[in-house]
Amino acid sequence: MKKLVVFFFLLLSGSLMAQQKFALAIHGGAGTITRDRMTAEQEKEYKDKLEESLNAGYAVLEKGGSALDAVGAAIHVMEESPLFNAAKGAVFTHEGRNEMDASIMNGKDLNAGAVAGVRHIKSPIDAARAVMEKSDHVMLAGDGAEEFAETIGLEMVDTSYFYTDRRWKSLQNALKKEKVELDHDEKSTEKKSSFIYSVPEDYKFGTVGCVALDAEGNLAAGTSTGGMTNKRWKRIGDSPVIGAGTYANNATCAVSATGHGEYFIRSVVAYDISALMEYKGLSLRQAGEEVVMKKLVERGGDGGVISIDSEGNIHMPFNTKGMYRGYKKSTGEMKIAIYSED
Amino acid sequence: MKKLVVFFFLLLSGSLMAQQKFALAIHGGAGTITRDRMTAEQEKEYKDKLEESLNAGYAVLEKGGSALDAVGAAIHVMEESPLFNAAKGAVFTHEGRNEMDASIMNGKDLNAGAVAGVRHIKSPIDAARAVMEKSDHVMLAGDGAEEFAETIGLEMVDTSYFYTDRRWKSLQNALKKEKVELDHDEKSTEKKSSFIYSVPEDYKFGTVGCVALDAEGNLAAGTSTGGMTNKRWKRIGDSPVIGAGTYANNATCAVSATGHGEYFIRSVVAYDISALMEYKGLSLRQAGEEVVMKKLVERGGDGGVISIDSEGNIHMPFNTKGMYRGYKKSTGEMKIAIYSED
Repeated sequence: MKKLVVFFFLLLSGSLMAQQKFALAIHGGAGTITRDRMTAEQEKEYKDKLEESLNAGYAVLEKGGSALDAVGAAIHVMEESPLFNAAKGAVFTHEGRNEMDASIMNGKDLNAGAVAGVRHIKSPIDAARAVMEKSDHVMLAGDGAEEFAETIGLEMVDTSYFYTDRRWKSLQNALKKEKVELDHDEKSTEKKSSFIYSVPEDYKFGTVGCVALDAEGNLAAGTSTGGMTNKRWKRIGDSPVIGAGTYANNATCAVSATGHGEYFIRSVVAYDISALMEYKGLSLRQAGEEVVMKKLVERGGDGGVISIDSEGNIHMPFNTKGMYRGYKKSTGEMKIAIYSED
Repeated sequence: MKKLVVFFFLLLSGSLMAQQKFALAIHGGAGTITRDRMTAEQEKEYKDKLEESLNAGYAVLEKGGSALDAVGAAIHVMEESPLFNAAKGAVFTHEGRNEMDASIMNGKDLNAGAVAGVRHIKSPIDAARAVMEKSDHVMLAGDGAEEFAETIGLEMVDTSYFYTDRRWKSLQNALKKEKVELDHDEKSTEKKSSFIYSVPEDYKFGTVGCVALDAEGNLAAGTSTGGMTNKRWKRIGDSPVIGAGTYANNATCAVSATGHGEYFIRSVVAYDISALMEYKGLSLRQAGEEVVMKKLVERGGDGGVISIDSEGNIHMPFNTKGMYRGYKKSTGEMKIAIYSED
């Protein structure tokens, strides 16, 4: 009799294990990404790198690794690629520097970590995780965050590591355009804008991110970015702000955002999706549509999010022309896409 | 006949005007504030300053000024007083510096501004407002935020302006205690904590804030702080984080928080109160009780909030022994209190 019970118990656990879903989704930035602006080669380059990132995260989940580890693994691939605006390939500030932000959140215990404006940490997402796990704090900034990262032994690099020609040219274009706009303003008889500095429309986007559900049912979300080209005054966007650019809670969902950060902060985007699920009983899809396709659109906030719930459902809404994105599930489903019509 | 219509119109507007409510609430920090730790003189000093702050904000509202202006006026009084942990009287970092954070949000248009880790701006709350009104950004940090503040003509001061003996002594005590704890750790045979740096329990609190409803029905919230004594690595707390330490939305409420910032960030405290009202239909009181007295208590997050809704209802829940607080309403009601039993 005892043996029979053990047998059925094992059978039951086995079938539960088999049912256990895991999945992850990634993004590599949203913006004016249209088919006519991309060559077939560029498209392939992006899709290959997105696939590599998905596979890196998926490999962690497949081996029974945590959602947090999967988020890190997937983001590392994009941080190390010059294609995306995070770590290597980060955009330049007005002063010609790379200042990076990142954050991560654990849906299991609502712990979180973030760094803002770091310049020498090879992997900002690793630094965010270290803040979460090895300090009492959630958010560290600038040289303070770097001192912490160095103390705990994270890899530090020379600022030249982050340099790419493409991003440097973007800054030069932005500076030229800014000069033209300023000259125009001076000649103009119209009342000058109250904004003493405006961000060019095309330079607002970037950011990479990952959300994951592991086999134990834990959710995690992470985001890493170089911010916006030509940003000034140590501007902090939504990426390192828990609740805005990143949020995870096992009870609801995990979300990573990309877009015009200021609007995402003001709308507390990532947490708002979770709150709509928790308080209004919306599905992941309904909540994402409400926040990204209605609220943000009404408020003028361009961008998108990737999101996953505790059932492994994935939703990747965005209100721009394109968003580099993809997901991979233990059910075998996989998708990699760029344009809104994909 | 025409004259009669005008007469009734004026009568009606007059009575509407008379009904128009306005009100504000302030806090000067929550923590282990108990009657036995305070002398009668200290108590009076705090209550007098809270009253001065309330009256400064109320005077703005009474003249038909905006909620935003009232928030600034009330916070200025506390920023300029050495009694509170904001601007003059800010606590010291591990390195012996004053690094201040502040944020403000306009419930009318959800615009917001924040500064983090500033050291030379006389009024951090003014800098937050300038970021909101004179830049495209929401959050600026460190010397970048200071460069911006100087560019637009805000008053800059030498770091000595923020010095107070009392806060300096607090830092020395914290450093001494930390050394004792480290020595103990080294001698201890127990497994060392994964945290390489712990914040002493008594030094987590501070922060001033104000929420206001003006005669036009607009809400605003603002928060200003020196952060926590002995903080390191350019730690950013909840005060400059929109959604965590500060939030305002005419559709729901305005909230300013004070407490153990890390927990407030992870729980997206200020926005959570708004979300519970908007999505679950809770009253301001119910939402505040849920977030501050249940969720935060379960998660170990000490502190409190002041909050006001579009009807002028005020709620000031806190889960610590005390919170310097008060409110004043156009109905004539006024309250100033310190301890939980008040």
